[in-house]
Amino acid sequence: MQIFYTQNIQQDKLLLDKTEARHCFKVLRHRNGDTVYVTDGKGHLFTCSVNSPSEALTVIKTTCCPQPRSYYLHLAVPALKKPDRIEWMVEKAVEIGIDEISFLQTHRTEKNKINLERIKAIAVSAMKQSLHYTLPLINPIVSFHTFTQAQYSGLKLIAHCMNEDKKPLKQYEQAARYTVMIGPEGDFTPNELREALSANFLPLSLGSSRLRSETAALAVCMGIYLINDV
Amino acid sequence: MQIFYTQNIQQDKLLLDKTEARHCFKVLRHRNGDTVYVTDGKGHLFTCSVNSPSEALTVIKTTCCPQPRSYYLHLAVPALKKPDRIEWMVEKAVEIGIDEISFLQTHRTEKNKINLERIKAIAVSAMKQSLHYTLPLINPIVSFHTFTQAQYSGLKLIAHCMNEDKKPLKQYEQAARYTVMIGPEGDFTPNELREALSANFLPLSLGSSRLRSETAALAVCMGIYLINDV
Repeated sequence: MQIFYTQNIQQDKLLLDKTEARHCFKVLRHRNGDTVYVTDGKGHLFTCSVNSPSEALTVIKTTCCPQPRSYYLHLAVPALKKPDRIEWMVEKAVEIGIDEISFLQTHRTEKNKINLERIKAIAVSAMKQSLHYTLPLINPIVSFHTFTQAQYSGLKLIAHCMNEDKKPLKQYEQAARYTVMIGPEGDFTPNELREALSANFLPLSLGSSRLRSETAALAVCMGIYLINDV
Repeated sequence: MQIFYTQNIQQDKLLLDKTEARHCFKVLRHRNGDTVYVTDGKGHLFTCSVNSPSEALTVIKTTCCPQPRSYYLHLAVPALKKPDRIEWMVEKAVEIGIDEISFLQTHRTEKNKINLERIKAIAVSAMKQSLHYTLPLINPIVSFHTFTQAQYSGLKLIAHCMNEDKKPLKQYEQAARYTVMIGPEGDFTPNELREALSANFLPLSLGSSRLRSETAALAVCMGIYLINDV
């Protein structure tokens, strides 16, 4: 099932953007009367009819498809040096299931900027491919300090590589909301860890393997998914 | 800690191949008397001294580092159309922990050949980066039928997307050996599933999310790792 995405919805009419429209009408050659499926990334699936020649879509049916997971996951990941690693991570996280992504600027972060539009496009593509209908919230870069001091309900975890006491996911009680920070390639600094623990983040172990940051992020997504919903 | 890799070991002398030697002596500029660390990918870490001008390495100490996991994992994955997806998957699987990878040719596999040398190079790089010292065995493409009919000890699982009875990982007992088949993008065919079940592969659920093949492969690696060793 091919899904299109738009947020351009006026009553019962949808308009696709240039890229989506090209794919719909030029590549897949949808014509007057064809049925196409469109999501708004907010949990809705619209069954639509094509109205040539305007290429507008008329909504025939709206299905509410709230994301099926039993938990809300907010992952805070470092801005990595290589964009393709961030993109890979976002794609896989959306496939598995994620609600919110923040990008952390820590002491040892390799980069201080990210291409937010590109990342959002990756998220849209992954959402459509995996037949999800809810886009995660994707937040711009935020400093470690600001992120740590903000308020979050539920379980707050920090995944780090230092030789300190930390527990694996399965030893924490299941939660309705998770906020998890992943360290950069050089790990958090001891000061950053102390600050997070003081702000009631609990230390998370991802085992003895030394994982790259994006792999650690996926380990968290996967682990929480497997523990709660599989 | 920078790790080099070679299988060219003659008594107490190691020789690095051209790429590794270039990195060691030209990029990192190791000189006579420097200490370098080398693995043979078979669970050994050699502490070596550089002997200029020959660039040979003399072994000072050998440490046995068997892979630390409590289980053996053999993953059979489809040959995917895009090589970079296979490469990502191999890299991440080696980081998390894997012992053997086979490439399946199924009815719906998109490609029938893989670049085995390239994949082995990815595995070596991931092994070094994650401070593992054991390379997984990487097998060439094998037909679904041949793979299914071979003998494997331990738990044999097939991950598929059909609406048949299947259990999640956590409902299977922990095993010392896992052999897991992952379906191609179009899934296994019903006949293939029947053949696998007849050969005593048990059906594995990875939840309700529709995962790409390489994501499903990582879900299995991660799930088994988290269940057994974290």
